[in-house]
Amino acid sequence: MDKVYFDHNSTTALKPEVLEAMMPYLTNQYGNPASQHSYGRNAHIAIEQARRQVAAAVGAQANQVIFTASGTEANNFAITGIASNMDSEQILTSQIEHPCVSNPAKAMQARGWKSNSIPVDSNCKLNTRDLQTQLEAPTDLVSVMLANNETGTIQDIETVVVLAKAKKVFVHTDAVQALGKINVDFAALGVHAMTVSSHKIGGPLGVGALVLNKRVDIQPLLHGGGQEKGLRSGTENTAAIVGFGAACELATQALNDFASHTTSLRTALETGLSNMNAVIFGQQATRLPNTSFFAFENVEGETLVTALDKLGFAVASGSACSSASGEPSHVLLAMGIDEDLARGAIRVSFNSNNTMKQVDEFLIALKQALQDLRQMTAIAA
Amino acid sequence: MDKVYFDHNSTTALKPEVLEAMMPYLTNQYGNPASQHSYGRNAHIAIEQARRQVAAAVGAQANQVIFTASGTEANNFAITGIASNMDSEQILTSQIEHPCVSNPAKAMQARGWKSNSIPVDSNCKLNTRDLQTQLEAPTDLVSVMLANNETGTIQDIETVVVLAKAKKVFVHTDAVQALGKINVDFAALGVHAMTVSSHKIGGPLGVGALVLNKRVDIQPLLHGGGQEKGLRSGTENTAAIVGFGAACELATQALNDFASHTTSLRTALETGLSNMNAVIFGQQATRLPNTSFFAFENVEGETLVTALDKLGFAVASGSACSSASGEPSHVLLAMGIDEDLARGAIRVSFNSNNTMKQVDEFLIALKQALQDLRQMTAIAA
Repeated sequence: MDKVYFDHNSTTALKPEVLEAMMPYLTNQYGNPASQHSYGRNAHIAIEQARRQVAAAVGAQANQVIFTASGTEANNFAITGIASNMDSEQILTSQIEHPCVSNPAKAMQARGWKSNSIPVDSNCKLNTRDLQTQLEAPTDLVSVMLANNETGTIQDIETVVVLAKAKKVFVHTDAVQALGKINVDFAALGVHAMTVSSHKIGGPLGVGALVLNKRVDIQPLLHGGGQEKGLRSGTENTAAIVGFGAACELATQALNDFASHTTSLRTALETGLSNMNAVIFGQQATRLPNTSFFAFENVEGETLVTALDKLGFAVASGSACSSASGEPSHVLLAMGIDEDLARGAIRVSFNSNNTMKQVDEFLIALKQALQDLRQMTAIAA
Repeated sequence: MDKVYFDHNSTTALKPEVLEAMMPYLTNQYGNPASQHSYGRNAHIAIEQARRQVAAAVGAQANQVIFTASGTEANNFAITGIASNMDSEQILTSQIEHPCVSNPAKAMQARGWKSNSIPVDSNCKLNTRDLQTQLEAPTDLVSVMLANNETGTIQDIETVVVLAKAKKVFVHTDAVQALGKINVDFAALGVHAMTVSSHKIGGPLGVGALVLNKRVDIQPLLHGGGQEKGLRSGTENTAAIVGFGAACELATQALNDFASHTTSLRTALETGLSNMNAVIFGQQATRLPNTSFFAFENVEGETLVTALDKLGFAVASGSACSSASGEPSHVLLAMGIDEDLARGAIRVSFNSNNTMKQVDEFLIALKQALQDLRQMTAIAA
């Protein structure tokens, strides 16, 4: 495909170096890491090496990294697994969590837990006063994402931790969108559990991790052969885990360049967008450097995505996970954005391979698409 | 590695044709299948093609196939998900299930369910009279594996289905070890749910499926973005799913050759083993063609695995998933095998690439290893 890809928050291409690191495990190094023979031992060694690479990238110790098959699994595991070993009290999330955090919390209601969510302001920043109020009720766990997948808004997790710890409440953060884009430090954040995923940072699909403070008693989500010290059963996906390790190492090395390069692209984009009277969501908040979420009055987001796709640009209308539903972004509604405007939302998310030339061409295409759509609407009206 | 690999029931090499089918999705076709742009649509089309391939290989309809990240996840999903939507009654399994069936059933005890298991005879065959008795108690679900991972014994699932349906009880079968080795037909078996996995048949790790009769009301194990019609959230692992589809198609084409080739290897192996006074487990039962599970009196299985590894042969002492525990096989104990003999168990599992020459050389190496070990034991005694 020769289209320009501006949807890296949804998923991003496997880096060639990562695929290269994986190839031995996709060909001749195929042992089951639980096996006693040398094929098995070699796989085991590769996994432990990857565990150290992931740990190093997120400021954790290797023995705090539990590999899962995805960020979604790690989030479900954290929410369900931590609450299950506690007293059927409250699970607190924010109103802007990814559904793989909010939905497991809601599902626990059928098992006796309460699930409540903390509002955000118009820039997508958590209302910490409301958090403090809600923490007055007995609470098992608070889960607040480090960076939002749609707006890119970065939350002040340190404050969440301070407020929660004052009530002896565990904190989980979904750092899937933050990893590789900003510095992510498990120890410095002080959270008890943190989710990361491989395919957002140039690693393969099919692997994520829950980083867990060992003082937290967690119940497995997947029971079975007892892999990952009994906390996550299932034959380890050696190739994917090795790829995740390699991707973490590369992402750490490239972090500063990623930030400066994508910031310059976004600045150019948003200058152009403002000239076209776009509303840019969360612009006043500290955001991920690569993410821009915006809308135009009276232009439907999905229609614009399709028009831009035809003009050679792959962008998103909200997150991929919710775009199939046709509902306006729950993140924008939580920010108090009007429902009609929210339906117009378009997300552009860059990576290091995107260029200023692509941004310039995108702005021209966008102008064209808007003109065409408005003309069609005028004719229909 | 140039060792002879006789541990294909544990995991087996990715077939080159499968890797080739996956490569586009590991390189330039990297869209998220939930995305509206053309990258996304192409991934979506590839997944639906793979769904039809998997369905065709197991006698199911495409809309009955729910992709998961592993057989372990599919088994946990089936047990937990079906029982959760029912009346907190009994979950029945067999005593020879893989732990990723028996352990989720046990874990449901903490949530109010009873978990009971059905014994087997000395050939690893289910005691259907005991099943009938246990079905007198109110039961949500029976789960009996189609073929055992250690002995290879094939169960009479049709009879399980007849007995369970008479009590209006759902039946799940774990067909992970059966797929690609014997004919597996979801419709003909008449079960309500069936687990299959990719990495046992020359497909990649990181993907499995639950085949589900749509009349069964199941609760998701992974909540989130609502993929797989809301039943299994998480970004689809397109490359792995495509590989699973390709592996299913290849396995179906090769099924007869697989059976005849591995049967001839096993016959030669077991003739040699009998001459060396091995005890062969489950030999009187109908078994998978490629699997032989045996022991020698007074020889410890793990020691023999290590000795054979040094001599160039990768075999298993029981299943990889339980071999790390050091406990004797629960399958052999359920068959009434003496604990000391069970500790001696060795599993050889072939695939199509193994040769008669390898079997001949293995028998020579085995004789050598046994002689050495017995000599050491004699010196130590």
